[in-house]
Amino acid sequence: MGVVGDVASVQTGAQSGLVSFDTSPDSYRHWRLSIEGEIATLTLDVDDHGGIVPGYELKMNSYDLGVDIELNDAVQRLRFEHPGVRCVVVTSAKERMFSSGANIRMLAQSSHPWKVNFCKFTNETRNAMEDASENSGQTYLAALNGTAAGGGYEIALACAQILLIDDSSSAVSLPEVPLLGVLPGTGGLTRVTDKRHVRRDLADVFATRPEGVRGRTAVTWGLVDEAVPRATFDEVVRERARAAATRSTRPAHARGIPLTPLRRTITTNDVAYEHVTADLDRGASTAAITIKGPSPEQAPGSLAGMHELGADFWMLAATRELDDLILHLRTNELEIGTWVFRTVGDAASVIACEGLVTANREHDWLANEICLYAKRTLKRLDVTSRSLIALIEPGSCFAGWLLEVALAGDRQYMLDGLAEDGEGEPAAIVMTEANDGVYPMGNALSRLQSRFFGHAEHLQTLAAHRDQPLSAAQALELRLVTAAPDDLDWDDEIRLVLEERAALSPDALTGMEANHRFVGPETTETKIFGRLAAWQNWVFARPNAAGPEGALRRYGTGQRGQFDRKRV
Amino acid sequence: MGVVGDVASVQTGAQSGLVSFDTSPDSYRHWRLSIEGEIATLTLDVDDHGGIVPGYELKMNSYDLGVDIELNDAVQRLRFEHPGVRCVVVTSAKERMFSSGANIRMLAQSSHPWKVNFCKFTNETRNAMEDASENSGQTYLAALNGTAAGGGYEIALACAQILLIDDSSSAVSLPEVPLLGVLPGTGGLTRVTDKRHVRRDLADVFATRPEGVRGRTAVTWGLVDEAVPRATFDEVVRERARAAATRSTRPAHARGIPLTPLRRTITTNDVAYEHVTADLDRGASTAAITIKGPSPEQAPGSLAGMHELGADFWMLAATRELDDLILHLRTNELEIGTWVFRTVGDAASVIACEGLVTANREHDWLANEICLYAKRTLKRLDVTSRSLIALIEPGSCFAGWLLEVALAGDRQYMLDGLAEDGEGEPAAIVMTEANDGVYPMGNALSRLQSRFFGHAEHLQTLAAHRDQPLSAAQALELRLVTAAPDDLDWDDEIRLVLEERAALSPDALTGMEANHRFVGPETTETKIFGRLAAWQNWVFARPNAAGPEGALRRYGTGQRGQFDRKRV
Repeated sequence: MGVVGDVASVQTGAQSGLVSFDTSPDSYRHWRLSIEGEIATLTLDVDDHGGIVPGYELKMNSYDLGVDIELNDAVQRLRFEHPGVRCVVVTSAKERMFSSGANIRMLAQSSHPWKVNFCKFTNETRNAMEDASENSGQTYLAALNGTAAGGGYEIALACAQILLIDDSSSAVSLPEVPLLGVLPGTGGLTRVTDKRHVRRDLADVFATRPEGVRGRTAVTWGLVDEAVPRATFDEVVRERARAAATRSTRPAHARGIPLTPLRRTITTNDVAYEHVTADLDRGASTAAITIKGPSPEQAPGSLAGMHELGADFWMLAATRELDDLILHLRTNELEIGTWVFRTVGDAASVIACEGLVTANREHDWLANEICLYAKRTLKRLDVTSRSLIALIEPGSCFAGWLLEVALAGDRQYMLDGLAEDGEGEPAAIVMTEANDGVYPMGNALSRLQSRFFGHAEHLQTLAAHRDQPLSAAQALELRLVTAAPDDLDWDDEIRLVLEERAALSPDALTGMEANHRFVGPETTETKIFGRLAAWQNWVFARPNAAGPEGALRRYGTGQRGQFDRKRV
Repeated sequence: MGVVGDVASVQTGAQSGLVSFDTSPDSYRHWRLSIEGEIATLTLDVDDHGGIVPGYELKMNSYDLGVDIELNDAVQRLRFEHPGVRCVVVTSAKERMFSSGANIRMLAQSSHPWKVNFCKFTNETRNAMEDASENSGQTYLAALNGTAAGGGYEIALACAQILLIDDSSSAVSLPEVPLLGVLPGTGGLTRVTDKRHVRRDLADVFATRPEGVRGRTAVTWGLVDEAVPRATFDEVVRERARAAATRSTRPAHARGIPLTPLRRTITTNDVAYEHVTADLDRGASTAAITIKGPSPEQAPGSLAGMHELGADFWMLAATRELDDLILHLRTNELEIGTWVFRTVGDAASVIACEGLVTANREHDWLANEICLYAKRTLKRLDVTSRSLIALIEPGSCFAGWLLEVALAGDRQYMLDGLAEDGEGEPAAIVMTEANDGVYPMGNALSRLQSRFFGHAEHLQTLAAHRDQPLSAAQALELRLVTAAPDDLDWDDEIRLVLEERAALSPDALTGMEANHRFVGPETTETKIFGRLAAWQNWVFARPNAAGPEGALRRYGTGQRGQFDRKRV
C-alpha cells in the first residue's frame, strides 16, 4: 500500500504523494491472513501508527483508507489465489474490541471529497465480501470477539453470518448519529433494515443509542445471528465456519492464480498499464482512456490455456488494470471530471476471450471469478462521480464485455464510416451473451435492460442482432448509441460535447448522473449508493457535522457539537 | 393563501408572517379553474407581482410556494367538490410559455430549509396529481401551449399525458444543471427515466441542454406524447381530454362535497382545530399532537349519512386538519424537531367511521376520495423531516386508520396498565382491514408490511389478531410497539426519549429517518423523496450552487458561476 506524504497534495491531484491501491499480504500492516484448509481467517490488528495520512492514531482497531485497501486486497486474493477456501472468518486480535469503526479524527480532518471517496471505496469492499458469500462459494463469517462499533459493525453486516461474544461488555452499535452527528457511512442503516430485517422502530433505537446492544437482545432484534459465551466462542465459530464450508461448491484441489504485481507507469499526464492507458488533459478536465484488445498469445483457445495464463489472461489482466485505474483517478485526480473511453483491437479476439469466460462461468471457478470481477469493476464505473463518455471509432473492439464499458457510459458516440484519412473498416459493435445479464448492475438488471427499461419489446429486437457486427447506422437504429456523426461532424461534435461537459457544475453532474444511472428497481446496493450515500454527503456538507462547532469536529474535545436546530 | 410579510420571521418560526395553506378558487392569483361538464381546465396565469415573499417577480409563469399552494388546493377541490370531472387539462394563459418553472431569484434568495420545504411540498402536489389520474378517475393532461422549462416541465411530467405545441419555439427542457448548477427539484430526473422511460443517454443529453427539445424529437425521445401544430392544438387537446374522460369510472351525477374553510386557532404555543390540536414546547423542541376520535353525530351509520355530513364527516374533517397541521409545522416551526402523537376517544367509533370508508371505497367515489386523501396525508408524515413518536395511553383510540398514524411513527410507546391515579380501561390498539394495504406507503407496501419486511410469516400471525383490542402486553408480544413501560417507568422513560432526541443533530436525524422509513422495494415516488431529494439537498448545500459565486446565485447577473472543479 502506498503511503501518502501529504493529504493536501493528494486532494489537488498533484503528482507527489499519490494514493496507491497496491498491496499484498506480506506487507499488510493492519490485517493478518491465515489459511487452514478450507477456512481462512482475516484478523484485524490495526497498527495505531499506520495511518495512510498523518494526523491521527488508529486506536481501538479503528480504520482509515489504508486499512480498507488491505481488506480489499485480501478479499480479492482469497478469490483468485485460494480457490480451496470456502469460508472466511473475520475477527480481531484486540482484547474485547472487534473494531471501533472509521477513525473519527481522520474523518474530522478530511476534506469533503476525501470522506466521500473513502465511504465509496469501503462500500465497494463490503459489497465485494457479499458477492463472495453469494456468488463465489466463499462465505464471510463475522466472529465478533469484542465490540463492533460503527464501521466495525458495518464490516460484520457485510458478512453472511454474525457471531457476537456474549459477555458483559461486547456490543454492536451504530453510534454515528448520537456521537458524531453523521450517518453510518458504509451501508449500516440500509443493511440493518433491508438485509437483516430489523424492525424500523428498533433500528431507530439502535442507531440513536451510542452504547449499542449486547447479547440476547442483539439476537432478538436481528442485529446478530448468535450470542456465544466466551468459553465456547472459538469452538462455535469453528463449527459455523465448517458448516458454511460444507455448503460451498468450490473445487477441492484447484490451483490458485497468483495476482502478480500490476505494471504501471504514472507520469505527469499519463497512466500506462499493459492493456489500459489514460492520457489526462488537465486544461479540459478530461482523461482519454484506452483499453486494448488481446494479442493472440493472451487469448487462449481453451479453458486449460486460460488457467495456464492466469493473471496474464487478457480479460483478467485488463480488468485488474481498469479497476486500478478507476481507483487511481477517483482518488488522485479529482478535477478530471470526464472520462472518455476508447478501445483498440480485434473484436473477434475479444469475443473469443470473453466467450471462454462466459461459457464456463457456471462450472469453472476461475471463469466464474473473472466474470464476477468484471462485474464488480463495471459497477465501480456505475457509481463513479465522473462523466463517462464512450467513443466508438474505426479500429475499436466494443464487443460483449467491452461493450458493457460503453453501455456503462452516460453517452455513446459512434463514428459513421471512416475518418477522412482512415483506412480499414468502419467501426462496429457486437452484442454477445455477455450483454444479456452476465454483468448485472447494482439494480440487478443488465445494462441493456436498464437502457431499455419500460421497452421490453425492444430487448427482443436486440436479441435478433446478437453476435453480429453492427455498423454505426445499425447501432443508431437499434438505439445502442447516442449519436453517430460522420467524419465531417465528428471532431467538432465530440469537442463540443467535452467542452460543454467541462463547463457544468461538478456537483450538479454528480447528482444528475447518480439519478440517471439506476433506473427501475432498487436493491440494498443501489439504496446504499443512491440514497444513503446522498444523505451522508449532505450531512457531511452541513455545519452541524463538519463545521468548526459541529459534532464530528468536536468529538473527543470534551465539548458537545453546537447545532443549528432547524429541521430540514 | 396567506401572504407572508417577512421570510426571515417565517424561517425562525416566529408568530408573525406565518405561511398559510388556506385558499380557494375565488382568491387564486395565479391559476384559473374552469369546468365544462366532465372536463376541467386549470390555467396557469401567474401574477408577476404576487410572490408569497418579497424580493422577486414571478415572470414568465414562474412559480413559488404561493403558486403551488393554489395548485394543491385546486387538485384537492376537484376531487371532492367536482365528482363529475373526469379529465383535468393543465395549460397556460401566457403566449408561447407554459411555465418557466420555479422562480430562480426566489430560489437564490431562499434559505436552505425554505428551498427543501418548497421542493417537498411541490413534489407532494405532483404526486397528488398522479394519484388523481391513477386512482380517482381524474386524468391530468398537460396541454403545453408553449415552452415548459424546468419545474414547468415537471408539472407536465406529473400529468398522465403531455401534448406539446409544435411550432418553431416551444420546447420542453430541464435547464437546472446547465444554467443553475442544481438538479430539477420536483422529480424531473426520475420521471423522465422511470415513468416516461426515456433512454438514459438521451436523458443525459436532455438534462444538460438548456434549450431543451422540441416537436417530433421530443416525441421520439419519449419526453412528450404528441407534438401538435398550432392550428389543431386546441382541437386535439379537447379530443384527448374527451377520450380520457371516457375511460373514467367517475359517477355522472354525483353531488360534490364543499371543502369548507378550516377552523383553526394559532396562538404562541398552540394550534387548535376541531379534532386536532398541537401544543408546542419550544424549550424541548417538541409538539404534542392530539387527534380526537369522532363524537356520535360525526360518525354516521350509513353511506348516505357520510355524504350528508360531507366535510363535517369526522374522518374527512380530521384528515384535513392533520394535513394542514403537518404543513403548518413543517413550514412555520422548523425548530420543533419531534412530533408526539396521541389520540383521545372511542376506538369503536373510529372503527365505525373508517369501516364505512374502507367498505365502500371501491364503489363510492367519496369513500374512495377520503381513503386516498388519508393515504396522501399519512405519506406526508412518512417524508416529514421530524422525529415522530406515538404515545399510546389509556383513553386513546389507535384503531385502524389512526393506528396507521402510530405506525408511521419512528417509535411507538404503549402504557401497560393504568396510570397511578388512572380510571377506566388500560390502553388498547386495534388492527383492522385499514392496516392491510388500504393506505400504502410510497414503497407500495402497507406500514405493517414495511414494519415486518422479511418476516412474512409474522403478517399471518397478525391477521389472526385483527379486529380485536390488543393490550400493551399483546402489542409488545406482536411487535406492534417499541416498548410498553408500566406506570412506574412511563414518565421517566418518555421524558428520556424526548430529551435524548432533542439533543441529537437535526441533520443526522433527517438522514437517518429518511433511510429507515422506506424499507424494501422502491418506486418512482420513494426514489424522488429518497434519492433525488437527498442529492438535491446536497447540491443546495454546496458553494457551487448556493455560494456567493455559485451558479444559482449568479444566474441573471451576466456572470457565470465559479466552480470548485473537484468531482465528489
